[in-house]
Amino acid sequence: MYSSNPRSNLLFVVLILFSSSLLINSRKLDLKQPQQLDHGHTDDSLAYVWPLPWDYTFGNQTLTVDPNLSLVTQGNGGHSVIVSEAFDRYKKIIFEHCSSKLDGSGVDYHLTRLNVIVHSGNEELQLGVDESYTLMVAARDELSVIGGITIEANTVYGALHGLETLSQLCAFDYGTKTVKLFNAPWYIQDKPRFKYRGLLIDTSRHYLPIEIIKQVIESMSYAKLNVLHWHIIDEESFPLEVPTYPKLWKGSYTKWERYTTDDASEIVNFAKMRGINVMAEVDVPGHAESWGKGYPDVWPSPSCREPLDVSKNFTFDLISGILADMRKIFPFELFHLGGDEVHYDCWNSTPHVKQWLQDHNMTAKDAYQYFVLRAQEIAISLKWTPVNWEETFNTFASSLDPRTVVHNWLGSGVCPKAVAKGFRCVFSNQGVWYLDHLDVPWDSVYYAEPLEGITDASEQELVIGGEVCMWAETADASNFQQTIWPRAAAAAERLWSKKESASSANTTVLPRLEYFRCLLTRRGIQAAPVTNFYARRPPSGPGSCYSQ
Amino acid sequence: MYSSNPRSNLLFVVLILFSSSLLINSRKLDLKQPQQLDHGHTDDSLAYVWPLPWDYTFGNQTLTVDPNLSLVTQGNGGHSVIVSEAFDRYKKIIFEHCSSKLDGSGVDYHLTRLNVIVHSGNEELQLGVDESYTLMVAARDELSVIGGITIEANTVYGALHGLETLSQLCAFDYGTKTVKLFNAPWYIQDKPRFKYRGLLIDTSRHYLPIEIIKQVIESMSYAKLNVLHWHIIDEESFPLEVPTYPKLWKGSYTKWERYTTDDASEIVNFAKMRGINVMAEVDVPGHAESWGKGYPDVWPSPSCREPLDVSKNFTFDLISGILADMRKIFPFELFHLGGDEVHYDCWNSTPHVKQWLQDHNMTAKDAYQYFVLRAQEIAISLKWTPVNWEETFNTFASSLDPRTVVHNWLGSGVCPKAVAKGFRCVFSNQGVWYLDHLDVPWDSVYYAEPLEGITDASEQELVIGGEVCMWAETADASNFQQTIWPRAAAAAERLWSKKESASSANTTVLPRLEYFRCLLTRRGIQAAPVTNFYARRPPSGPGSCYSQ
Repeated sequence: MYSSNPRSNLLFVVLILFSSSLLINSRKLDLKQPQQLDHGHTDDSLAYVWPLPWDYTFGNQTLTVDPNLSLVTQGNGGHSVIVSEAFDRYKKIIFEHCSSKLDGSGVDYHLTRLNVIVHSGNEELQLGVDESYTLMVAARDELSVIGGITIEANTVYGALHGLETLSQLCAFDYGTKTVKLFNAPWYIQDKPRFKYRGLLIDTSRHYLPIEIIKQVIESMSYAKLNVLHWHIIDEESFPLEVPTYPKLWKGSYTKWERYTTDDASEIVNFAKMRGINVMAEVDVPGHAESWGKGYPDVWPSPSCREPLDVSKNFTFDLISGILADMRKIFPFELFHLGGDEVHYDCWNSTPHVKQWLQDHNMTAKDAYQYFVLRAQEIAISLKWTPVNWEETFNTFASSLDPRTVVHNWLGSGVCPKAVAKGFRCVFSNQGVWYLDHLDVPWDSVYYAEPLEGITDASEQELVIGGEVCMWAETADASNFQQTIWPRAAAAAERLWSKKESASSANTTVLPRLEYFRCLLTRRGIQAAPVTNFYARRPPSGPGSCYSQ
Repeated sequence: MYSSNPRSNLLFVVLILFSSSLLINSRKLDLKQPQQLDHGHTDDSLAYVWPLPWDYTFGNQTLTVDPNLSLVTQGNGGHSVIVSEAFDRYKKIIFEHCSSKLDGSGVDYHLTRLNVIVHSGNEELQLGVDESYTLMVAARDELSVIGGITIEANTVYGALHGLETLSQLCAFDYGTKTVKLFNAPWYIQDKPRFKYRGLLIDTSRHYLPIEIIKQVIESMSYAKLNVLHWHIIDEESFPLEVPTYPKLWKGSYTKWERYTTDDASEIVNFAKMRGINVMAEVDVPGHAESWGKGYPDVWPSPSCREPLDVSKNFTFDLISGILADMRKIFPFELFHLGGDEVHYDCWNSTPHVKQWLQDHNMTAKDAYQYFVLRAQEIAISLKWTPVNWEETFNTFASSLDPRTVVHNWLGSGVCPKAVAKGFRCVFSNQGVWYLDHLDVPWDSVYYAEPLEGITDASEQELVIGGEVCMWAETADASNFQQTIWPRAAAAAERLWSKKESASSANTTVLPRLEYFRCLLTRRGIQAAPVTNFYARRPPSGPGSCYSQ
């Protein structure tokens, strides 16, 4: 079954694997010659890995992979169920065509073992957790301990990324009916450029069933995204159970469009098993009309319902109760408090609120600040780091808690201002990273740069990453995945790979993205054609997945 | 946890279950009062079952279902892995919100056991297999053996339908955090109106990954569709492996957009486990250009490639080889030979073909008939019953093998003509049942009638059913499900339920279909909004799944 004799290459392998770091960068993707992906003449010299790893070298051997690939673990974290379950998932993906070939009798495969070394037994998943990994692939040889596949990482989350990359190096060869790993030996040292790589889902405008959210999380892991920003509730509906205030989910669209606390915990756990944090959002004081379905007292009046009534202590009791209940579900250190699009009309026009403002010598704008800061205090008292949409920073930056993470959305230029004042920032410029903007094609997403306008290294450090946002006015369970993919992948590479790798000079980007889109579809994800100008449009005619 | 005391209803239950058949039809859905499905005020007296069962009675009890529901099987077919695997699948569906509640300690559920009785041990899945089942649900009682859930069927395939219906009777109650079964006791006697209830998929215009095809099959089973018509190859691409002629899948779009024979067998088996037959199609002599990528000799000439060269024996050798190889994969008795849209230009303009026609004293039309009949002979020699698109019947009905199943598509009126001549017919009138026609809304699909224009009972018998067709010019992995659902469900009820149940007088249809669409999304299927006029359009704004 061998397509080449790897033993004769032993010395080469050893040299590659243990050569100086100068050598590590010596062989890269051939950026000059991407080939047309049509009719079987695909360029096997291209590594179709998405997002592109940080540093890597590769060779020209083709190795076969045993469908009975065994897992051998080492290190304090090696025996984690997070590793073993991921191994089982990726085995299904890598060997999807080999289900009836599992006996493997008589076949001598190059790669029969996967060694996973995880140094730390700490499985806490927090912002900045070490996601780096090293992946080495070489033909085994009895004269050497080097051969086989080895993933080495400090944490289980780095190991997960290593497994994903490994899965992308493998492909089923329809000719020999074996899984092959091309361009070995590989030596990959990888890590993310940004520690926060997010996707927003909005389950208020349209309820997303648990099964769909799990599909989204699963697909995020394929692109190495690591934060699911769950905009759970908004003015349209309140699907989440809050045990302390059990009437709140009366604000759900129907009695079936709800999440129990167990459902939410299950989603958090499902995401953690895939290295993804869930950041919940409670968007106050605007975007909260649905709260009043269960507790009308939080509306300034039945006819004027937003923002939440700033004059009542009950409003803040409710926020305290919601956040305390949610704290039991969401262990991630960041919690989003919204704070966007607050219009003061109801405060100024409702007599008792107007009176309260006068009594406290506040303008409505003062009350907005008062509200946001009081909500921040509640979150901070629960040991959460508050995240707020940029309007809070734009309106009263100097009063914000300095721990606040400023979430950009209105346009460019806010992160530079925020980090100049010492705040951390998340980039989501709506012109390029709001996926509900269907007229933003993949390359506009791809070439957006979170550090634009920030040159000082210490300020750059404060941009913790970015997030693509999928507001759900016209997105529901039926079209969510095809609206976010492949564009979310474009942002994922921007947030993971070296800035210079993800440059317009890199002509491998489009074929790799087309390949990744088809990889998603092979894994059952409804990723839309890459080259349509408008997102989620159907293919314009018959053709290969790899060129649409 | 009881919402009512079922023991006091024992006598009533016994009466319902064992009363005369007159009683069986005595309680039906209240067709007069469907209620608005908004904000939690859903009508619990409505049974949201799709497609509507044949005969049923129900009560007004609400019963709780044990998350540790156990399976007890009886009969020659009860121990089938088809039953036990389906039970596991449906348990996951029914108890999706109860994963952390599996201890069930201290809770006294009404329904703790599912009895499945399958009389026949014969698992052969063929056209006309007995798909009927009886489903009885009543509170258990120590004084009686009647209580619990019982599915009785002659075959495992009837039992599968019973499980699907059972799953639709259950719903998670977010208030009590238990699964409830409403409107018990239930007594359902169900069977399909038509034995052939198909969906066409087209993997030539766009390749559908195995994972996506499995999702389609899984979703078909929810609507009790039972034939996957797999239009595997066409002029655009040839993705299937044919061992006897290994160059044929050179006609695939890329080396990755292929199905091995093992892949195809796996799909057939996956479908069988869900009671679905796979009918393969080899569409000759038109729609076959891609064959020539590997074997250019089947083209009349390199510049004139369709229909296949009628003058060469090699063409028929190739068909024989393909069909013999496919026979090992596809056990279903029906095999589709296409025969549509044959244009004679290449035969009349290519010198050696023209000469052959003259030598054999044939017109091109004669040659079309000769080709189709010779292909039929090959299929029949392999013990297949040939299916052909209606052009073959329209052009040379009297020459067709009388076993031929005529597949209507061009419009209405063909099935009446075909059955009048003794042929069997499948209804797929493109004006209503071609799902690639995006301007056909759900109700046009729903009210199409396969027996239109056929009054004679023996002729009606010859219409074996119908099929919705999803031609894939603009449908790929990204939008397949949202293009077919919910419209395929509309056809599914037409093909399953009593004609009078599926009438425009039945005002439960729309709320039930909206409920079924949301049921699909809860199961992870990308079913599009029901009420959009154009198929696969996004929802027009925020709102509940149940009213879009």
